[in-house]
Amino acid sequence: MRIAKSVRTLEAYIPGEQPKAKNVIKLNTNENPYPPSPKCAEALAKFDIDALRRYPDPVFTAMRERIAKIWKTSPERIFVGNGSDEILTLAARAFVENDEAIGSLDPSYSLYRTLADIRNVPFVPSPLSDSFTWQKPVLEANGVRVSLFLLTNPNAPTGTTTPAETVAAFAKKFKGTLIVDEAYADFAKTNCVALATAADNRNVIVMRTFSKSFSLAGMRVGYCIGPEDLIEALYKVKDSYNADAVAQAVALAALNDLPWMRTNAAKVKKTRARVAKALAKRGWDVLPSESNFLFARPAHRHAADLFHELKSRNIFVRYFKGPRTGDRLRITVGTDTEMDALLDTLSTIDAV
Amino acid sequence: MRIAKSVRTLEAYIPGEQPKAKNVIKLNTNENPYPPSPKCAEALAKFDIDALRRYPDPVFTAMRERIAKIWKTSPERIFVGNGSDEILTLAARAFVENDEAIGSLDPSYSLYRTLADIRNVPFVPSPLSDSFTWQKPVLEANGVRVSLFLLTNPNAPTGTTTPAETVAAFAKKFKGTLIVDEAYADFAKTNCVALATAADNRNVIVMRTFSKSFSLAGMRVGYCIGPEDLIEALYKVKDSYNADAVAQAVALAALNDLPWMRTNAAKVKKTRARVAKALAKRGWDVLPSESNFLFARPAHRHAADLFHELKSRNIFVRYFKGPRTGDRLRITVGTDTEMDALLDTLSTIDAV
Repeated sequence: MRIAKSVRTLEAYIPGEQPKAKNVIKLNTNENPYPPSPKCAEALAKFDIDALRRYPDPVFTAMRERIAKIWKTSPERIFVGNGSDEILTLAARAFVENDEAIGSLDPSYSLYRTLADIRNVPFVPSPLSDSFTWQKPVLEANGVRVSLFLLTNPNAPTGTTTPAETVAAFAKKFKGTLIVDEAYADFAKTNCVALATAADNRNVIVMRTFSKSFSLAGMRVGYCIGPEDLIEALYKVKDSYNADAVAQAVALAALNDLPWMRTNAAKVKKTRARVAKALAKRGWDVLPSESNFLFARPAHRHAADLFHELKSRNIFVRYFKGPRTGDRLRITVGTDTEMDALLDTLSTIDAV
Repeated sequence: MRIAKSVRTLEAYIPGEQPKAKNVIKLNTNENPYPPSPKCAEALAKFDIDALRRYPDPVFTAMRERIAKIWKTSPERIFVGNGSDEILTLAARAFVENDEAIGSLDPSYSLYRTLADIRNVPFVPSPLSDSFTWQKPVLEANGVRVSLFLLTNPNAPTGTTTPAETVAAFAKKFKGTLIVDEAYADFAKTNCVALATAADNRNVIVMRTFSKSFSLAGMRVGYCIGPEDLIEALYKVKDSYNADAVAQAVALAALNDLPWMRTNAAKVKKTRARVAKALAKRGWDVLPSESNFLFARPAHRHAADLFHELKSRNIFVRYFKGPRTGDRLRITVGTDTEMDALLDTLSTIDAV
């Protein structure tokens, strides 16, 4: 056949809408409401266009050295991807046999299931507790063993966090590879990087992205830290030049201005607390969030209806249908002005 | 196991060296010796850094429309990748079952074998004739059928070209998907785009890159044209946002200045003819090339020795060991100054 069977039946992952209109309040894809560091602008402005005729550094030397310094580890433990999405795809290739499975919490990042479908292996969901917290994962289904577990922490779309000690205890027992996807960790109180950099770590990879806290979603850069043998496996299966020269330069500039990122993350956290309180006051059920979004059940309307109502008023939030997620909205934390507009619009809708 | 068996035994593809030194004459990775269009510089300089906090257009609308216009086809037939390397990887996922094989000419782009290894399916080489021209491909080995044939045309590292009619006749009979990798087609007399845009095309994808003729190797952008169902399959298996916003803007700018690219390609072709003649005059066996490199057998020395000798003199060319390639060097066509330096150095070496 010209198209592989598993691809013919594949349902593609549907990313959040990217509306073209300018007057939209966009709270649907967990983008940062604040711009990237001026150092990124500088890196872009002074980038030597003539250098683009050459292939980029295939092993991102400068970035890896900088990341290793930040986390007090060695560059050999670092890998950089074309967005952390690419790292996930490579991990599915490197750490999963054809007769093994990919697992994750449920609900979690819905891309994970698509990843398993593309890799043509089973996906094994591990239900979160009723309050959306960690409980013992399911690591086998129909005799197929999970060899790659993808743990978004803080989790999406719930915003809830599994404590590092729980993750450590799980990793210790788990026979496969655990990727802790820390896309939102800069908005959280803790993280699992120490697990990844530990000398005796054999199976934990911690993944970071520039898309959220660093405000560089458009640039497509992510990285991960893990044991040398697993990192080496990712290098083996990657495309020769997976990270472009401009992306490497701009991401490096972002890493050289951590205070900028931290200031923005602090602003987001402050706004998050305020909006969570305001929604709770309106009777919404708001999950405790350590990410840059809130996952909340509206008080008076069905989530799906409210999603459409908000959209018709040019406010985009995210709605995930399904038994565990279908009564809630995931709302990215924007600027204070944007969130005030959201709260005002909710009042208007309630008054109708 | 934590690392998949096929990955543990995998020999990674080794791209050409990217020496850090500045005083090097780099003729080893088929990069363009001339800079990208000033329109690319402009696109980079005026890129709004604040836009990077948003995800890029996941379906590269502007680029696809421009490409469709250039080739008089519809945007639905166009796909854009993070370099054409990514398109190859996606094709291996979309068009090959676990029990099928990937085929290509031999010798050809050595990445193809690695691709098959990563995909964990057999690789079936189809030997070129003694004069490195097309002959009937091998489409089965040990009972495994080739379902994806990767035809670099003009071929690398040979520089030789298979006529479009031969490709068309092959595609007509071939039951799988044929990707014509036209990385070097802007340096050739003809191409196979008409096969890809034909209304009755069911299995031909023609692939182009910005890395060679457009002088944008560092930017990582490639695209392909094919029948809608095959293109749709590539969309299904790609990462959500595989092409970053800056890359899309810069590549679009390059497409909006085709005369710049054509002028550079013409210069390369002129230099190519001159150097081919000069080498032949020295007794080298130079294959007829329609690409931006020459594949030639030195007259007086073994290719491997000469490779090292040139490298010690800061001139990097490419050497591929192996029964069909090991007595030749692949020399990228650089500027006239660079090629004169090469010819002078060859004289010096011969005189020693």
